[in-house]
Amino acid sequence: MSMRKTLLAAVSALGLLASPWALADKTYTLRLAETWGPNSGLLGDAPRNMASMAEEMSNGRLKIRIDSSNKHKAPFGIFDMVRNGQYDMGHTASYYYKGTIPNAMYFTTVPFGMIAPEMYAWFYHDDGMELMQKVYEPFGLLSFPGGNTSNQMGGWFRKEINSLEDMKGLKMRIPGFAGEVMSEVGVAVTSLPPGELYTALERNTIDAVEWVGPALDLQMGFHQIAKYYYSGWQEPNAEVQFLINKKAWDKLPADLQAILRVSMRTAAYDMYIQSTHESGVAWEKMKQEYPDVTHKVFPPEVVHALRETTNRLLDEFAEKDELAREIITSQREYLEQVRPWTNISDKAYLNSVAND
Amino acid sequence: MSMRKTLLAAVSALGLLASPWALADKTYTLRLAETWGPNSGLLGDAPRNMASMAEEMSNGRLKIRIDSSNKHKAPFGIFDMVRNGQYDMGHTASYYYKGTIPNAMYFTTVPFGMIAPEMYAWFYHDDGMELMQKVYEPFGLLSFPGGNTSNQMGGWFRKEINSLEDMKGLKMRIPGFAGEVMSEVGVAVTSLPPGELYTALERNTIDAVEWVGPALDLQMGFHQIAKYYYSGWQEPNAEVQFLINKKAWDKLPADLQAILRVSMRTAAYDMYIQSTHESGVAWEKMKQEYPDVTHKVFPPEVVHALRETTNRLLDEFAEKDELAREIITSQREYLEQVRPWTNISDKAYLNSVAND
Repeated sequence: MSMRKTLLAAVSALGLLASPWALADKTYTLRLAETWGPNSGLLGDAPRNMASMAEEMSNGRLKIRIDSSNKHKAPFGIFDMVRNGQYDMGHTASYYYKGTIPNAMYFTTVPFGMIAPEMYAWFYHDDGMELMQKVYEPFGLLSFPGGNTSNQMGGWFRKEINSLEDMKGLKMRIPGFAGEVMSEVGVAVTSLPPGELYTALERNTIDAVEWVGPALDLQMGFHQIAKYYYSGWQEPNAEVQFLINKKAWDKLPADLQAILRVSMRTAAYDMYIQSTHESGVAWEKMKQEYPDVTHKVFPPEVVHALRETTNRLLDEFAEKDELAREIITSQREYLEQVRPWTNISDKAYLNSVAND
Repeated sequence: MSMRKTLLAAVSALGLLASPWALADKTYTLRLAETWGPNSGLLGDAPRNMASMAEEMSNGRLKIRIDSSNKHKAPFGIFDMVRNGQYDMGHTASYYYKGTIPNAMYFTTVPFGMIAPEMYAWFYHDDGMELMQKVYEPFGLLSFPGGNTSNQMGGWFRKEINSLEDMKGLKMRIPGFAGEVMSEVGVAVTSLPPGELYTALERNTIDAVEWVGPALDLQMGFHQIAKYYYSGWQEPNAEVQFLINKKAWDKLPADLQAILRVSMRTAAYDMYIQSTHESGVAWEKMKQEYPDVTHKVFPPEVVHALRETTNRLLDEFAEKDELAREIITSQREYLEQVRPWTNISDKAYLNSVAND
């Protein structure tokens, strides 16, 4: 070692190198656990895209090893495993942890909330990142946007919905906060493991199922047995998440932190664009192979009831918890500012060409 | 130098360093010329954001020095200056060079074409990047997406447009391909330097002016004198551009190429999100300070005429040039695949909540 140290000192004295760690050429390997299984399409592509950018940009000094759920066996335990240092990083969705931290939910999506570009604008140009950090800091974690599924569909229905009355008693698989809202308007919300959904829908054990959107619904095959594909209300965007253990982060030199931060940011945007692409491809394929498949929008009275219920529940959350109030208010105020712009730009344009 | 060489060889032999260039700690400085002046808001922020990511991630090994148009005096000469090596890089817009390379136009925007996420999907998941490279390669240049303004507005009008007849003889400032289309439907298209537009509009020398969108229109002040703000048709997204001289690119080691590529990609996405944010802020401000300002959409017959004219002109371009045909066909086919998805997701959602 003394030979090595002497050389390092000599080289350093000659000003040939920018910083000691560059000389040491230290390689950092971070272990990442993802919620998803090994073949999960765009959800699994996001952390791999991130890892490959980080490795290439760092010339191999930063490596990220990814374990899928078949390896770690805890798809919804990512938060805990990264928190306790079993893994350095995670790729998951914030709203899976609302049992432990109720305020985690708002950083994935909120019914009747923002679409993807609006949500990114809230994160990066309004209070989004700061509020998310406020929620995760007490657990020794950093959280970053991890990819957007884009606007999610309202689900596959075997029967057409013509009124609010048609929703009463409807047996539907729809999890999370959206399920709570549906339940409030009279839907019989059921929870079934993903592997049983197709058969349940086929045998009329359930009448409807909400999954994601064409890109991820295609392989589930619901379009083969349910004719009506409804536009969504419950996840107008859904941003998944990179979690990082703060201690693991602090050990990285500044340039590798920058490389990691930019790789995550780019992989998140990239997933949004990949979802846009694959949704287009999959929706075309569904319609070609099953020409009976029909796009529908919920009747105005259904939309109205779901929206009123959503707002009532959000008001209740805001009343009970100070930080919840801060987040909900920030998102509502931001939406009020950005949506008029979305309406006079993309919405007006898409309508004008669709009607021509 | 022999002392240095000896040391390098010794350190290298000890396997302390990953690659020779890391040892040499060579710093690369690229000179970038931008079309924009020094205070150009989000357009100028994009290359600066890119440069700062690249410098941070490379730990100072990659520096990008930016010259604005007040320095190089050639806002629309970026293509030539990067081509001939006077600058290594440029930040500009592809359609400014349609005089020299007519096929450059399609990589910025096309009237009645794609919105921003659709355009990125075409670049990154369809033929976009490959076709763009086909256009720029003969000039020894690489071209990358450089930031999106998001959907641009149709312009500020002093009088309401109620029919196609109202467009005839209307004196309007609208440049480029959109100006050609406008001229075909009877508009008297005028070209005036930006500095004269406000006064011309105020004195009725012109009746209408197209600029960008709220974020960049605000400082122009048109909303103080023209009441009607029309939704657009001519630039449903506009992607500006990073240009790189191929020889300068080839001199960079692989990790710095990766850092540069990812920095450009992220800065492009970031500009789109910044524009979304700033447009929301600026549009709210305009309406608050000038409550008479009213959003309008062109009547269906105007939209129809503009669209037919656009398609006729594109057909003509496609007939005259093989590569133009390839690009136009690729964009049309891609739009046909992706737009149905946009319609059942964001469009359906935005309409359903706007009507509630």
